[in-house]
Amino acid sequence: MAKINENYLKLPGNYLFAEIGKRVAKFQTEHPDAKIIRLGIGDVTRPLPKVCVDAMIKAAQELGNVETFRGYGPEQGYEFLREKISDWNYRRRGIEISADEIFISDGSKCDCGNIQEIFSLDSKIAIADPVYPVYLDTNVMAGRTGDLHPNGKFDGVTYLPCTAENNFSPAPPENKVDLIYLCSPNNPTGTTLTKNALKNWIDYAKKNNSVILFDAAYAAYITEENIPRSIYEVEGAKDVAIEFRSFSKTAGFTGTRCGYVVIPKNLSGTTSSGEKILLKNLWLRRQTTKFNGTAYIVQRGAEAIYSDEGQAQVKNLIDYYMTNAKIIREGLGHIGLSVYGGVNAPYIWLKTPKNISSWDFFDELLKKFHIVGTPGAGFGPCGEGFLRLTAFGSRENTLQAMERLAE
Amino acid sequence: MAKINENYLKLPGNYLFAEIGKRVAKFQTEHPDAKIIRLGIGDVTRPLPKVCVDAMIKAAQELGNVETFRGYGPEQGYEFLREKISDWNYRRRGIEISADEIFISDGSKCDCGNIQEIFSLDSKIAIADPVYPVYLDTNVMAGRTGDLHPNGKFDGVTYLPCTAENNFSPAPPENKVDLIYLCSPNNPTGTTLTKNALKNWIDYAKKNNSVILFDAAYAAYITEENIPRSIYEVEGAKDVAIEFRSFSKTAGFTGTRCGYVVIPKNLSGTTSSGEKILLKNLWLRRQTTKFNGTAYIVQRGAEAIYSDEGQAQVKNLIDYYMTNAKIIREGLGHIGLSVYGGVNAPYIWLKTPKNISSWDFFDELLKKFHIVGTPGAGFGPCGEGFLRLTAFGSRENTLQAMERLAE
Repeated sequence: MAKINENYLKLPGNYLFAEIGKRVAKFQTEHPDAKIIRLGIGDVTRPLPKVCVDAMIKAAQELGNVETFRGYGPEQGYEFLREKISDWNYRRRGIEISADEIFISDGSKCDCGNIQEIFSLDSKIAIADPVYPVYLDTNVMAGRTGDLHPNGKFDGVTYLPCTAENNFSPAPPENKVDLIYLCSPNNPTGTTLTKNALKNWIDYAKKNNSVILFDAAYAAYITEENIPRSIYEVEGAKDVAIEFRSFSKTAGFTGTRCGYVVIPKNLSGTTSSGEKILLKNLWLRRQTTKFNGTAYIVQRGAEAIYSDEGQAQVKNLIDYYMTNAKIIREGLGHIGLSVYGGVNAPYIWLKTPKNISSWDFFDELLKKFHIVGTPGAGFGPCGEGFLRLTAFGSRENTLQAMERLAE
Repeated sequence: MAKINENYLKLPGNYLFAEIGKRVAKFQTEHPDAKIIRLGIGDVTRPLPKVCVDAMIKAAQELGNVETFRGYGPEQGYEFLREKISDWNYRRRGIEISADEIFISDGSKCDCGNIQEIFSLDSKIAIADPVYPVYLDTNVMAGRTGDLHPNGKFDGVTYLPCTAENNFSPAPPENKVDLIYLCSPNNPTGTTLTKNALKNWIDYAKKNNSVILFDAAYAAYITEENIPRSIYEVEGAKDVAIEFRSFSKTAGFTGTRCGYVVIPKNLSGTTSSGEKILLKNLWLRRQTTKFNGTAYIVQRGAEAIYSDEGQAQVKNLIDYYMTNAKIIREGLGHIGLSVYGGVNAPYIWLKTPKNISSWDFFDELLKKFHIVGTPGAGFGPCGEGFLRLTAFGSRENTLQAMERLAE
C-alpha cells in the first residue's frame, strides 16, 4: 500500500461536529419522540434573503440560454462581486481595499483551512484557545505540529488562552510565532477584539515578522459602533494581515457556499534566503491550480446583498438572530448562569454549572432538556468548563429551549 | 516576514491557461477587429440542460422558504445525489460502487489537486506525459518533487511517455512508484486506455503497493463500446484505484462546479509501521476539515441528469460536441495534418507541421488564423510538437476555424 499522511493520525477521533452529530443521532434513535432543539452547530435556519433567491433564479436561467451561458469563471471570482465587496464592505467604511485584493471562494472554512498551504511547513503557529477547530486541525494535518498531549495541547503550537479574566482578549505571546490565527467576533466565545487589542497584535506581528490570519466571518453581527468590523480599520494592518469573510452567517449561505479572502497587495512573506514574495501571488497560484472558482449562480446570489434592498433584508435576518441571542443571554442569566458573548456575535458562551466538564454538560443538556449545545472543550483546552449556544435557531425553538431550562 | 512555501517557486511562470489567456488578450488588444475562435481551453459553450436549470430554480426557491430551507449539507455530499450516481453510473453498468464510497465535490480539479494531501510527502509519483497539469503542479507545491530541469522534467517524478508509437498508452515503469495518475479518455491526447492496458496497471499497482488515481472526467464522451468508462470495470481495480468524475464536461457544469471521487471501501494505505488505514476515512477527514460541501442548488442541478429526460438532454449535448470533434478531425486530416483523439474524447491532438515547437505553432495559429489552441508542451515534455484543439466551441466557430485552415 502507498504510505499515508500520518499527520492525520495525530488528530483526536472525529471532527467536533461529526462527534456531536453522532451523539445526537444515537439519542434520537433511542428516544424517537424527543423534540430535540439544536442550538449547537453554527448553522442558520432562516431562508435566504429574497434578493439572493431572485438573483440565483435569474443566473440559472442565464445558464440555460446559449446567449448568456457562462463556463469557467475567473479562479479569483467575478469582478462584479469583488467590486461590490470592495465598495460596500470596505470603501464605504473608509478602508481602501481594491477588488484585486479580494479572492472569492466557496466559503471561509475552505479559505481558513487552505491558507496555510502557501506558508513554510516550518512556520510556528499561534491560535486563540478556545477557537474554531479548523485553524489548528489543518496545521496538524499539514505537519506543522508535534503530537497531542494528554493536556489537550499539540506540541509546537502556541496557545493563547482566552478567559473571563482577560476578557477573552489574548495578549501576544513572549515567544516569536510566524502565523497568528485571530477570530473576532470570536467563535466560540462570542466576544470581540477592540482596536487597541488589534493594534497590539499588529505591533507584535511587525516586530516578529508574523502574518495575522484574521477571521471576520461574523463581522455583520457587530452591533456596537466602536468595535472594528475589519482588521484593516486599524493602522498598519495591511502590512501584516490577511482577512477572511463569509456570506454564510451574513446572508444564510451555509448551504450555498460563498466567502472571500482579502490579501493586501503589498503583503509579503520571504524565502529562506530573504527574498520577498507577495502572498497575493502565491494565493492566486494556489487557487488557479487547486480550485476552479465558485459557481456563477452563487456569486450572483452573493452580489445581490449589495443593494439597499439587499442590505435591508440582511439586516432583518441578523436582527432576527440577535434577538434570539438576547433571549438566550437573558434567559441563562435569569437562572443564574454566567454567560458571555451574544452582543456582537451570534454565539453565547456559557460557564457550565458546578464546574462540570463540557462534554458532561453537553450530555446532560441533551438527555434532560433535549437541547444540543457545543462542548467548549471541542474548541481547545481553555474551552473546558464552557458550552457554546448559538442564536441561529428559530424564535420558537429558542424560546422553548429557555423555557425548558427555566423549569 | 513569515516564511513562504518555497515549493511554489519551483513551478514555471504561470499556470498554463493563464499564460494562454494573457497571449490572447494581448493579441486582441493589438487587433481589436480580429474575430478570435477559441478552441484552446477545455471550456464548454452550450447552455445547461433544461432539467438542470429547472432543478436549480426549484432548489433556489426552496432556500427562500423557511419550511424547505437547507443550511450546511453533509461534507460528503447529499445522499440523493450519491445514490443516483451509484445507480446510474455504476450499478447499471454492472459495477458495485455504493453511495458511501462516493464523495461529492465542487469539481474534479479540486479533487485531483487535493487527493495527494492524504498521502505521505515521501510518496513517489508517476504521471502520464503529456497530461493535465494539475496532477504534477499540486505535487510540486506539496514538496514531492525536486527542481525543474531544463529538459522540462522535475526531479523525482516518473514520467510515462505517451507517444504515437505506443498509441498514447504508457506501460508501467521499471521502478516502483506509490501514486500513479492516469487519465482516460486522456486530456490532452483524446486517446483512451483499453481494459488490457488498465489491467497491466492494476497488476503493477498490486505488485508495488501503489495507488492509481484514475481521472475519468471525460468518460461520458466514450463512443466505442469496448472502452471502459470506469476503471472499476476492470478486475481488481477496487483494491488499488481511486476514480474522479465530473459534471463539467458531461453536463456543462464548468461554471456551476460539481464533481465526485470514488474511494472503494476496502482501499487502504499504510503507516510507516505497516498499519493499514482506509483511504476513504482519511479523505472524509480531509473533506470535513477543509471543505464544507457543494452548494445544495448545484447538487440538485447535478442530480437532474439522472432521469430518462436528463440522460437524453446530456446525450444531445455530447453528440453536439462529438460532431464538432468529427469536423475537426476530418478537417485537419484533409489538409494533411496528423491527428489523434476525437473519437472517444472531446480533444483532438494534432502534430505540429514541420516539427515546429508547440508554442510557435500556437502563436502562428493565433496570429495567422485567429484560432486559439493549447500548446502541447504545456502538458509535459512529450507534448512538445503537438497542439490540443477541443470540440467545445459552437458549431459555427468550429466550421469557420476549419474553413480558415483549409484556405
